[in-house]
Amino acid sequence: MTLDRIIDDIEPADQKIMQQAREHTSRLVMPHRALGELHLIAERVCGIQRTLEPSVNSKAVLVMAGDHGIAVQGVSAYPQEVTGEMVRTFVRGGAGINVLARHAGTRVLVVDIGIIPDVSDLAGEIAAGTGHFQGENVLIVNKVAKGTMDFTIGPAMTREQAEQSITAGYNVAGDLFEQGVELLGTGDMGIGNTSPSSAIGAVIMGHPVERMTGRGTGVDDEGFGRKCQAIQKGIAVNAPDSEDPVDVLSKLGGFEIGGICGAILAAACFKRPVVIDGLISTAGALLAHAMCPVVAGYMFAGHRSVEQGHQLMLEHMGIRPILDLGMRLGEGTGAALAMPIIEAGVRVFLEVLTFEQAGVSKG
Amino acid sequence: MTLDRIIDDIEPADQKIMQQAREHTSRLVMPHRALGELHLIAERVCGIQRTLEPSVNSKAVLVMAGDHGIAVQGVSAYPQEVTGEMVRTFVRGGAGINVLARHAGTRVLVVDIGIIPDVSDLAGEIAAGTGHFQGENVLIVNKVAKGTMDFTIGPAMTREQAEQSITAGYNVAGDLFEQGVELLGTGDMGIGNTSPSSAIGAVIMGHPVERMTGRGTGVDDEGFGRKCQAIQKGIAVNAPDSEDPVDVLSKLGGFEIGGICGAILAAACFKRPVVIDGLISTAGALLAHAMCPVVAGYMFAGHRSVEQGHQLMLEHMGIRPILDLGMRLGEGTGAALAMPIIEAGVRVFLEVLTFEQAGVSKG
Repeated sequence: MTLDRIIDDIEPADQKIMQQAREHTSRLVMPHRALGELHLIAERVCGIQRTLEPSVNSKAVLVMAGDHGIAVQGVSAYPQEVTGEMVRTFVRGGAGINVLARHAGTRVLVVDIGIIPDVSDLAGEIAAGTGHFQGENVLIVNKVAKGTMDFTIGPAMTREQAEQSITAGYNVAGDLFEQGVELLGTGDMGIGNTSPSSAIGAVIMGHPVERMTGRGTGVDDEGFGRKCQAIQKGIAVNAPDSEDPVDVLSKLGGFEIGGICGAILAAACFKRPVVIDGLISTAGALLAHAMCPVVAGYMFAGHRSVEQGHQLMLEHMGIRPILDLGMRLGEGTGAALAMPIIEAGVRVFLEVLTFEQAGVSKG
Repeated sequence: MTLDRIIDDIEPADQKIMQQAREHTSRLVMPHRALGELHLIAERVCGIQRTLEPSVNSKAVLVMAGDHGIAVQGVSAYPQEVTGEMVRTFVRGGAGINVLARHAGTRVLVVDIGIIPDVSDLAGEIAAGTGHFQGENVLIVNKVAKGTMDFTIGPAMTREQAEQSITAGYNVAGDLFEQGVELLGTGDMGIGNTSPSSAIGAVIMGHPVERMTGRGTGVDDEGFGRKCQAIQKGIAVNAPDSEDPVDVLSKLGGFEIGGICGAILAAACFKRPVVIDGLISTAGALLAHAMCPVVAGYMFAGHRSVEQGHQLMLEHMGIRPILDLGMRLGEGTGAALAMPIIEAGVRVFLEVLTFEQAGVSKG
């Protein structure tokens, strides 16, 4: 599928079914809409899945991993090797996302979409005849390249690589939807990746870099200054076209952000809800939204990150975060943690009796 | 147990174990405290349970149900019969709390601590030789009286009844802790019960009634005016002693608020975390806190309710709500919905590898 064809395929979530869902909510045995956002969540899932019998039993979190040329500028508190080391930890099941995914009853699929080290020894196998990757924590290797280029001296990647990262994300998410996944979460791993994320936000939304930039994994004041300067330089050197999301991605990076953008486009194409995580996932979402604004109707924001640019991105797309717990880890942890809340909303919609069924007097 | 003996038994949560837990958190393979409140939650459970191997697998939600004399003043959008009808719905498993409790993997125990109708036909049976009530949704009948008196014309109950409601709540929660429950949620049912809750908050905290009062199940402007006036009249007529929580409870009601207060005291005595729900549960918590301020260390606030007095009560006790989803149902729904988040915090603490175990480079 080309990117243009993908975008052409996307239709808005179904408002008529959402209205029917609201009518059902009003019959539930409780004061009118007394469970607040839980009702909205369920009604949105109805509108996305085009059914009054929504289901989010089958879940997956896609963790897109990539390396970043910008890391050489000292913008992160961690060395670049950590990207690959964490990919190994994900496959072992020992990281934050693995624990929160197990808790939410969801699989983790890690995609090496462009990290520097070779981790193909860890890649999952497809079960014969099924086309499915097997296991709770699976690595899929689909490298666009071994890390992006340093965007302070030129484009992070070519335009072709940007499109390739988006279609790679689209394809892996699309495969999951075809295999029955009903609720997708997005996550990221990549040392240095808050820098391109803040840069993308600054360009797409036209905000000053300092307003979009936070401490990432925890740089000190000096590192924070370096980070803001590097982002400003990268925008000045590359002059990305804010009206052309693929150009913005290619100039600033990274591969995992493109992959997340593609996965979100796939959710909209396949009519499935997608839960985005923090700053990096939301940068991918911002690109998808810039290509096709109705994708916002398919997104849930798992949480509000500590990263200050994150809330601005969510406001830009008109999405309210479900949780606000002072988190800033990435990996898809905010998406996975919100999944039980989304599932709770759906179960309330499906399982609470109506006033009539319960024989309870109305007010 | 007398109330004085109960309060004498309570010790603060263990700060030394919480500090040891913080040290463990700092070794987890992620940027320092990157999962924010999840870490605090887990560390608090460690301090409460006095262990670095906390467990919240065994959970229960106690829904205390009582009727209110104040209901005759037209302070609710629903008729008083709904209290008993909803108790029947709880036992059938068809209400909001049943669905959210199933989702959280917790049982629901409904206590008739003073509703008007006789629902003893629904009461659960104790399995021979075990002392345990059996089943997913169980009713325990332990009536203090058939509803409170109208507090606009005199005390809602006698001082003896107030103490009896607290010890009844203490005893049922204590039984659950003795049977192995590791995490308790509190809930309420009682048409009219936001009025005594707001009244208790106004008296204990010294706030104006209008500041503590909300729309409850959804009264209109006229009903809201009646409700504020009724609360003001009740406080004027009864002149509760704000320094004597049992006096406040006896003057304003209700039995379920006393029961919730007792359950919270039990959590502190038995060294178990307790998740409080919205305005009514938090009024019970406020009474427990007034008797013994260190009980705040055993409480989690499941959510921030739409009821405006709720946030003020939480601030008074120094407790941050976990969720903020525009809910105002009661029944323990906010407590049950937060349980998966508390469990997630505990699992992160127990299951995420350390940097050393994962072989990941530190920053």
